[in-house]
Order: sequence, then structure tokens, then C-alpha cells
Amino acid sequence: MLITLLTDFGTADYFVGAMKGVILSINREARIVDITHEIPPQDIQAGAFTLMAAYQCFPAETVHVAVVDPGVGSERRPIVVSGGGQFFVGPDNGLFSFIYERERDARVFHLTNEEYFRPSVSATFHGRDVFAPVAGSLSKGVSPEQLGEEIRDCVRLPFLNAKLSADNSVVASIIHIDRFGNCVTNLTPDDITATMIAAGVNLTINGWKITSFRRFFAEMQDTPSELFAIWGSAGYLEISAYQASAAQLLGAKRGQPVTVKSDK
Amino acid sequence: MLITLLTDFGTADYFVGAMKGVILSINREARIVDITHEIPPQDIQAGAFTLMAAYQCFPAETVHVAVVDPGVGSERRPIVVSGGGQFFVGPDNGLFSFIYERERDARVFHLTNEEYFRPSVSATFHGRDVFAPVAGSLSKGVSPEQLGEEIRDCVRLPFLNAKLSADNSVVASIIHIDRFGNCVTNLTPDDITATMIAAGVNLTINGWKITSFRRFFAEMQDTPSELFAIWGSAGYLEISAYQASAAQLLGAKRGQPVTVKSDK
Amino acid sequence: MLITLLTDFGTADYFVGAMKGVILSINREARIVDITHEIPPQDIQAGAFTLMAAYQCFPAETVHVAVVDPGVGSERRPIVVSGGGQFFVGPDNGLFSFIYERERDARVFHLTNEEYFRPSVSATFHGRDVFAPVAGSLSKGVSPEQLGEEIRDCVRLPFLNAKLSADNSVVASIIHIDRFGNCVTNLTPDDITATMIAAGVNLTINGWKITSFRRFFAEMQDTPSELFAIWGSAGYLEISAYQASAAQLLGAKRGQPVTVKSDK
Repeated sequence: MLITLLTDFGTADYFVGAMKGVILSINREARIVDITHEIPPQDIQAGAFTLMAAYQCFPAETVHVAVVDPGVGSERRPIVVSGGGQFFVGPDNGLFSFIYERERDARVFHLTNEEYFRPSVSATFHGRDVFAPVAGSLSKGVSPEQLGEEIRDCVRLPFLNAKLSADNSVVASIIHIDRFGNCVTNLTPDDITATMIAAGVNLTINGWKITSFRRFFAEMQDTPSELFAIWGSAGYLEISAYQASAAQLLGAKRGQPVTVKSDK
Repeated sequence: MLITLLTDFGTADYFVGAMKGVILSINREARIVDITHEIPPQDIQAGAFTLMAAYQCFPAETVHVAVVDPGVGSERRPIVVSGGGQFFVGPDNGLFSFIYERERDARVFHLTNEEYFRPSVSATFHGRDVFAPVAGSLSKGVSPEQLGEEIRDCVRLPFLNAKLSADNSVVASIIHIDRFGNCVTNLTPDDITATMIAAGVNLTINGWKITSFRRFFAEMQDTPSELFAIWGSAGYLEISAYQASAAQLLGAKRGQPVTVKSDK
Repeated sequence: MLITLLTDFGTADYFVGAMKGVILSINREARIVDITHEIPPQDIQAGAFTLMAAYQCFPAETVHVAVVDPGVGSERRPIVVSGGGQFFVGPDNGLFSFIYERERDARVFHLTNEEYFRPSVSATFHGRDVFAPVAGSLSKGVSPEQLGEEIRDCVRLPFLNAKLSADNSVVASIIHIDRFGNCVTNLTPDDITATMIAAGVNLTINGWKITSFRRFFAEMQDTPSELFAIWGSAGYLEISAYQASAAQLLGAKRGQPVTVKSDK
């Protein structure tokens, strides 16, 4: 009966309130949890990253509603994903790409059974008229099979996985920048092993060379703006600076390439 | 036992947390839902619009607390409105104007029974000291009649209803601008019928002429900044632009007049 | 089973959602209430003030999780405070200073029992990995004693209490500025009595002299930017201006001294 919301609606308008009202009108016992409504407008990739980092903390049977939906009202399909014991409701535009990668049992259903929508579906607000009522129904025990046909051609974001290049360096990229300016790369402990770090590794990004690896933010408090790499809480290598924005220091943007080389 | 909150308090300070604590101290079973706390400071009209667009989605017996209250501590009356099976608690300054318009059974009560307030009422924070505890009591079954006398002279906002002018054009106005820059007018399907749209209609706003009506935002993706009219999710005609801010393109502000003419 | 959250994480990222998921994974019946996530990054003093002003409104047994934690991952201790019938979970960096002042029964415990942490504790996100799971356990009836040893050397903020100076004036300071620009001082009714105000008192701040005391914001609507003093809702004297930001008019910052003198 847990339902989370993740949108790009902001919190200043009536959009989020309306979604909550619709859910609670269907299931008064639903417990609604806001993940965030501050995904940059129509930024599917940021929505996908944030959902990925949050959903893993939730218990089984949680229903996650995610609405970052530039194509609302057009041909893009509304879907529900069942995977890892949880449900994900939203548009078929790549928003659930990380779920497909991580939950090997993921199944995707095209929401076509209008019986579970609001009586009159607006062309512009499927969050309220399609996704919220479907989430309410799922939280009451309706199964994905009742909501529509299973599909196998769902949209996936082109993942920017780290790659090994010809000269043995690893070419990665920044997939997220958080509000403190930490730059999250797509490098995992599979790409840079503890052995490699011990032997000496450096990262190059936007012309800057980063050689320092830390275990926590406050490790060397004397050098406030020194750039360093650290394993972040989402499980990826992050480029950070103590009490400063690494993104600003580096002039880095999402998508920026990061090259990893052995020192030797 | 559902209680919603809509304020201009922002979310950075302790104000909203204090209101929630007071409600939960009175009714531990209350389920509190944030509609928004980002109403522009003291903007009663924006609060009224946002509440109107959200409350209709909530189930019967919901208690809506709305606090946009430039006159706090002065003579303005604290009230509760009972209408459409729901309750609305806040200051008597026009914030509930849309409720009076839409819920023909609306009754208004002046909150005078201090037994339902916090023991010591501050002069500056009635959200915590008057409205939150009254909402907590309503959610436990206290009736509006127990809270004070019914009144019939409540404050109403001067509605900017669309009007027919001498030359048969309709003169409307922008009543809200959302965070995507969509300009919500006060035009309803009663003002512009499907027949009129089919026959050809144009809108003039701030010197711009809009002739395109769309069914959904992404209908014509090739012309990103073209302005068009669309029936919005709050039930009013909106002026929008695909992946751009119509308000910015038009240089439009709330209150701006919109003229509707037949093409022929 | 009430758990509140107060952090400097903002609401744009996955941090708050992850904490909520962890809590709900431990106690599905927990009811989570956001106080705020907009504490200025790493501003312990602002976090302490906001928590102080909010927690007093909550019922007994509420668990407050507060995370403003520049020292995360370093030597600073994670703690739980039991006081006034409520619990407070967070870092030992002064964030709970007001609780120690106000709740004479406050006891502090060092969180060392890792059995109540997440299986793998990251170096950078103790909100998710330490404080959230501990709060979940407390809400299920685990006692502070089970979580670690009592300590008596917890960190306290150097309070900026108002002081009497040699010439009988009171030297106070601004301890908080809210989003409306009201400047909250550390002056209480103990420092400026009603008798003193009746006899005539003036405040000097940043070269400005304030002589007007009001009971509520809208008391004298004709002078919109006049500065005045008012007893604020947190129990402290505030410097305000009607429909204007006192902080901006005064050029005042937190920490700024305020001098109080008798007129005579």
C-alpha cells in the first residue's frame, strides 16, 4: 500500500496534489511518499537515475509512479513494470531503463484497460488521469495482467556504460550531478577495482587530472577545494570537492567524458 | 482523516512542520498530504486557483487547510467552509472563492470557539495556532457548527469571468501561469464551444494572435516555439508553446486580457 | 510511530526518498513527516533552530531524524537523544543544542550497535545507512540503551544568549532569518519584559534604530516598509517590516548584534 511519486512537476502547482487526491480516492489506505518532484523539466535521464538510486531502498510491493513525460498525449505508451517485487508506473520513454538492467525478472505491460483510468482522460495530464489511478488500483491488488498486454519492445535509454579503449584506458562519463555539485560517473567497482586504485589510477575530465581517492568527504579538511574521487552512495564513483562544487570547479556537465588510466 | 495543506510558507522554515505536529498531536491517525507550500507569498488569487484545481480530486470528508493570510492577526475572520462533502479551513479573504462558486451547498462558519484553538494563540502564526488544531478536530468528527456561527457575508474574489463584448468578441483573462509557462485563461467550454473552434476562432493576447488549437502538447513537434491554445487539465483554455514558456514568449502576466474572435 | 525528517539534502535528489524507503522497509507502519529538507547546506545552526521551533508541536514518542552533517564519515559520533518524551537521531555536532537546553531530562547515547545500521554503511550517506534505520528501529520500540552507551560530552553550539552590558543595555543577536525576511533575535520575554516595553525601549541593529513594537504584522498597514519589533511565533523577538523583508531593509545577517536600551 506504499506508493511513491517522482515527477518533474515541481511543488508549486496543483499537479502533485491532484495526483495524491486521485490515488487516495481509489485507495484511502494508500501511504504516499514523495521521492522528488524536482526532476529538471522533461529530463528523462535525470528521472531514471534518481528513481534507480531510490527504489532499491523500498520494501516489496511498493508502487512507484514516475512521470517525466515530454510526449504526454502523443503515441508514447503508458506502461507498468513489474520487477524485483515492486511496481513502476509511467510513460514508456526510457524512464525505467535502470530497472530493466537491474531486475532480471522485469516484465512490462502496456496500460490499455481504460477501466482503470479516470473517466475522462485529459490530453495533458496523464499523471492524474492514467498513472495515479493505475497506481491506486495496483495498491489494492489489481495485477499488471489486468491492466494491459505484456510488451517486449519497451524504450531503453542508450546507456553510457564505461568502455575499455584501445590503449587500455577506461572511457566513462558523468551520468548525474547532484545538488552539492558532486559529479556521479558510470564507473562501478567492476570498472575500477580496489587493486587498480592501490596500484595508482588517475582520472581526466575536461582537462583536469584527478589522482586523489578518498573514503569520505571530510577526510582531508585542510584542502577545501581539492578535487578527489570517492565511491558515492548510489554505488558509482563520484568526483567531489570538500565543501565546494566539483561540477563548478571542473566546469563539468552531465554527459562529459571521464578517462581512467593507470599511473604506470 | 485526510488533511491537506496549502500555504505560502515555503518548505525551508519550521512553519509547515509545526502545523503537522499540531495536527498529529490532536489526531495521531490523521493522514497529512501536502498540496503545495509554494504559493507566492500573500498571493491569495494563486492560492485560490491551486486549491480549486486540486480539491476536486480528493475523496469525501477530506479537510483542506489553506493559509495564504496577509491579514493574520488583524480583523479578518478565521473560517471553515463545508461544501461538496469536504471541509476547508483558513482565513476569510477570498481564498475559498472557487469553492463558493462550484459547491452550491457551501456553508461558511466563523471560527470563534477558542476551545478548539491552541491554548495560547500567537498574533502571527494562525496556521499553527488556529487552523491546524481546528483541522485536527474536524478530522476527529467535530462539526463546523461546534466551531462557530454560520456567516453569509464571506469575502469573495472579484472573478475575472470571461465576458461577451459589444462586437461579439469574448473578453477573457489569464488567471494563472504554471511553472512550465502555460497561461491558464478563464475560458471554459461554455465560452468557446467545439462548434466555434471548428468554425475558426482566434485569440489575441498582448498583441499576439493565436490561431492554432491543439489536443495535446506534443501534437506538432516540429515547431517548438509556436504558440497554441489547448484545453488544460484544470478545465480551462491554456495558451502554451511546445517545450517553451508561452508566458515568456508572450510577455504575459496574470490578469492580462485575452480577446476571442470568430475568424469569419 | 511518527518519524520526522529534517535535512539539508534538498528535495531534488534521491537522498530523501532513499531515507524514507529504508525507514519503511524496517517499519511499514511508520508515518513519515517532512519538517524541511531546505536547511542551507551544512548550516548546523539553522538546522538546530528549525528543529527547536518544530519539535515542540509534536506528540510524545515522535522520532525526529535530523541530518545536517558536514563531518559525515569522519570521527564525529552518530547519536540518539531522548528528551521531553521524544527522540532525536543524528550527528553529534551541535544540531541538538536547543534540546539539551530545553529538555532537562535529555540523555544522549552514542550509536555504536551496528546491528541496527544497514548491512553496508557508506562513508558519505549516514542519513540512509545509520540514522534512518536507527529511527525505524526506535519507532518499533527499540530503546536508546540498546543502540549504544550513554555519553555526557556531546557537542553544544556556543549559544548566543542575550547579555547585559556594563551600561545596562542588553546585547543580543540575530539567530535566524526566515523566508519573509523576518530577523529572529535571541531575545525572550525574560530579556525584555512587558514593563520595559511599556516604559519605552529601542533596538539598534546595523545602525538602524527601531522603536515600534507591534502585536501583529498587519497592525499599521499604511506604512509598508516601516521596521518594527514583534514577538514571533517561535517565542523570540523578531524585527519585521509589513510586506517587506526586514533583513533586506536592514542589510542584516545572522549573527548580527542587536542592542536594546531603555528610552529614558
